[in-house]
Amino acid sequence: MEFSAQQIAEYLKGKVVGDPNVKVSNLSKIEEGTPGTLTFLSNPKYTEYIYKTKASVVLVNNDFVPDKEISATLIRVENSYAALASLLSLVDSMNPRKTGISSSAVISAKAKLGENAYVGAYSVIEDGAKIGKNASIYPQVYVGDNVTIGDNVTLYPGVKIYKECVIGNNCTLHAGSVVGSEGFGFAPEADGTYGKIPQIGNAVIEDNVEIGANTTIDRATMGSTIVRKGAKLDNLVQIAHNVEIGENTVMAALSGIAGSTKIGKHCMFGGQSGVVGHCTIADGSMFAAQTGVIGSIRVPNQGFQGSPHLLASEYMKSYVYFKRLPEMRAQMNEMRKEIDELKSLLEKK
Amino acid sequence: MEFSAQQIAEYLKGKVVGDPNVKVSNLSKIEEGTPGTLTFLSNPKYTEYIYKTKASVVLVNNDFVPDKEISATLIRVENSYAALASLLSLVDSMNPRKTGISSSAVISAKAKLGENAYVGAYSVIEDGAKIGKNASIYPQVYVGDNVTIGDNVTLYPGVKIYKECVIGNNCTLHAGSVVGSEGFGFAPEADGTYGKIPQIGNAVIEDNVEIGANTTIDRATMGSTIVRKGAKLDNLVQIAHNVEIGENTVMAALSGIAGSTKIGKHCMFGGQSGVVGHCTIADGSMFAAQTGVIGSIRVPNQGFQGSPHLLASEYMKSYVYFKRLPEMRAQMNEMRKEIDELKSLLEKK
Amino acid sequence: MEFSAQQIAEYLKGKVVGDPNVKVSNLSKIEEGTPGTLTFLSNPKYTEYIYKTKASVVLVNNDFVPDKEISATLIRVENSYAALASLLSLVDSMNPRKTGISSSAVISAKAKLGENAYVGAYSVIEDGAKIGKNASIYPQVYVGDNVTIGDNVTLYPGVKIYKECVIGNNCTLHAGSVVGSEGFGFAPEADGTYGKIPQIGNAVIEDNVEIGANTTIDRATMGSTIVRKGAKLDNLVQIAHNVEIGENTVMAALSGIAGSTKIGKHCMFGGQSGVVGHCTIADGSMFAAQTGVIGSIRVPNQGFQGSPHLLASEYMKSYVYFKRLPEMRAQMNEMRKEIDELKSLLEKK
Repeated sequence: MEFSAQQIAEYLKGKVVGDPNVKVSNLSKIEEGTPGTLTFLSNPKYTEYIYKTKASVVLVNNDFVPDKEISATLIRVENSYAALASLLSLVDSMNPRKTGISSSAVISAKAKLGENAYVGAYSVIEDGAKIGKNASIYPQVYVGDNVTIGDNVTLYPGVKIYKECVIGNNCTLHAGSVVGSEGFGFAPEADGTYGKIPQIGNAVIEDNVEIGANTTIDRATMGSTIVRKGAKLDNLVQIAHNVEIGENTVMAALSGIAGSTKIGKHCMFGGQSGVVGHCTIADGSMFAAQTGVIGSIRVPNQGFQGSPHLLASEYMKSYVYFKRLPEMRAQMNEMRKEIDELKSLLEKK
Repeated sequence: MEFSAQQIAEYLKGKVVGDPNVKVSNLSKIEEGTPGTLTFLSNPKYTEYIYKTKASVVLVNNDFVPDKEISATLIRVENSYAALASLLSLVDSMNPRKTGISSSAVISAKAKLGENAYVGAYSVIEDGAKIGKNASIYPQVYVGDNVTIGDNVTLYPGVKIYKECVIGNNCTLHAGSVVGSEGFGFAPEADGTYGKIPQIGNAVIEDNVEIGANTTIDRATMGSTIVRKGAKLDNLVQIAHNVEIGENTVMAALSGIAGSTKIGKHCMFGGQSGVVGHCTIADGSMFAAQTGVIGSIRVPNQGFQGSPHLLASEYMKSYVYFKRLPEMRAQMNEMRKEIDELKSLLEKK
Repeated sequence: MEFSAQQIAEYLKGKVVGDPNVKVSNLSKIEEGTPGTLTFLSNPKYTEYIYKTKASVVLVNNDFVPDKEISATLIRVENSYAALASLLSLVDSMNPRKTGISSSAVISAKAKLGENAYVGAYSVIEDGAKIGKNASIYPQVYVGDNVTIGDNVTLYPGVKIYKECVIGNNCTLHAGSVVGSEGFGFAPEADGTYGKIPQIGNAVIEDNVEIGANTTIDRATMGSTIVRKGAKLDNLVQIAHNVEIGENTVMAALSGIAGSTKIGKHCMFGGQSGVVGHCTIADGSMFAAQTGVIGSIRVPNQGFQGSPHLLASEYMKSYVYFKRLPEMRAQMNEMRKEIDELKSLLEKK
């Protein structure tokens, strides 16, 4: 399908600068734009590309001020990234959803499937499981005994949900993710071995949560491990037993939260960051990639970095001097010498 | 089912302080305790909650001395965490084990299954595989050619075991874990590409090992990658080819051991810690989260931290001064100025 | 099968030192060598073992000079590791490849399978998928709609490839790896929640790529996430949306690249290292384990370490002084005292 810049601007409530009749039929990245495509500029890092992109149309923010000529037609909107997202959603909505229940799925007679469900081949839905409306359960998914799943949930191929767990409405779980595995609970025995602590709780994922590919969320020893509504977990994230992740908290790939820690709302975790067990993290805390948090954080909305964690601003200040330590050492040696010289001079006087 | 504090105390060989007739029917976390539940206090971090918990019964250590009034009935035991574990095991043992061989499993005629096995739907057991007694093989598990699995082993959904690997007795492998994948063996060629080194060894998991969800254990180039008895690996752990993990060593999530490294017995790895290849780590070594070990450790029972690793005590001492580097730099500048002043003063005299 | 040292030397174009008639029937690690086996010495760390190994034959480099007597027969070759690799390949090639299309696979009538394909039980190949010659698709694999897969590709059990992705020739994907999952694209909304950015691009894996167990590669928002030919990714690696990994770049386990970053050719990433999003990394860059790269790198062929990254040589120099910070602090305190003494002395004079 082709659309003119004018049609798109109307859809996005934006304003055309340039040729309103130019047509596009696809989307592109600004650095790879080709004629007939629409692209966008949001991250200022990419500004240089707007002057040379071959895309026909570029979405830009209202406040964007070009400092050179631009050959593409611009569509000015309040938020170019949000506008792009809305176009992507439009394109995405044109893909028909998969439907039907595969005859190669094993669905317990004691399970309940909501209306309009899709269940792919080789998926297994065990006794007592309840699945809401419009579920999309791809092939090779495992839904354990008495699992409850809300409406409009997508489980991509190979998702595994252990018994008794709960998934809210509008959640998306990516391929290979695991919910409800047994926590790392072992008690040291007198003979040096570890005895297993059974994990009789469950994991509860609230509404509007997205869970990345091969991410793992352990069930609780007692009670529930909880991922609160709106949280977004990237790929290969680890959530240990009895953890609570607050609303709208986002965690980048390869980050992990150890047992019984409670993370506040609206926190942001960079990749490969982690938090030790049994602590509480205030709302709005932000962690740079690879931060290692070793205890509770009480003051909200602060940024942290380093392992163990420091305030990000303090860490970076100290790190500047870390880089210069060899120079500092040399200067100290120089001072040491000069002090000795001064002392011997003074003694002579 | 309901039990009185007295009945539970008798089962645990503990002593009731308070009302022996109060009844409980469930377990709870101390900070979330509700009437009719039993909870426990072990980690001193949670002591404050014992004075306000609404749980009816609390397991405490014999040496616990309250400093305020407690409304709950206490059961004093030698080790409250171990006592809790024993109650959890009791509850857990009431869940009936899954049984039967699903007609939707593909089991080679050349494979052997021990007595009393459970094999779930869509699992595949290849030629020559031998599986011991009381195996619980959940759906969608893959057991490759000539794999040997001991007695009382649980393989959760989606576990994949490559050909020729060996799993001991009483092991538990969580969903999505992989045993026997090919190690990262590549030899640089003259043209800048990498040639593959075939990995013809296997992986051997000894008795009583637990392997977390989506953890990966590579097969050896030659011989065996070995996880010794009693070791416990958390989720998303990486064990490279030809590694040996010692008895009763525990590794937290997202930690990794590079190729051919030999880890001693009773070591403890914090989350996101790692060890480089081709080294040897002494028994009882302990690694803080995110420690990066860059060589062999010969002296047993020491703690390490930092990347590269230092003795934990030394790392933390240095880190205290790292935090104060901007202050140190300012003090050095001050001293520099004062030395210059002293020098010019002396010159004048 | 048994071979004499002479026969093996001829195959490898090497030279026998010792008994040319000694026979071996298996391969072993040098530290575990037993009579009747062949081993090799390549990494100098293992040199000590050549004097005590019980292996019958050892492959060594032409330039190896023993400093003690060696009981084993040696075969001198130009590159002992490459020679071993060629023997391993020989052994490996004796394992017959799996063949046939399992009746328990679900293969869409609208999919195309090349000649000589193996498809295992419970694999799913969706509409429009095209798979090249000599494919080995193990059980429980998922190949989504319109996926294109080249010749001689191996997909181990449980691999999941989302719709529209492309896999080149001669690629190997290990168990549980995921290609084409949706990137971590969320736009903050005014109410503090995150709106999903649909990911309508795909992931393209070029020829000769190996992808480790449980590694995850996200599809692009628009365009393609690309892993260029010859790249090797270890287990549990994360490649975010719109990333490009250059030719022959190798990444060790648990490393991750954030969104839209472009990695050059021939780079090497140590375990647990990571790169932030939206940057460009020069060809030949090398990263020590746990390095955290926070921006673009323009100069090729340099080594880096630390978080944030520094030149490896600078990081290690600074780290030496980091270790000595308590000593530096003490020396500064001493100097401070002496300066004060000098000042008061001077005042008195």
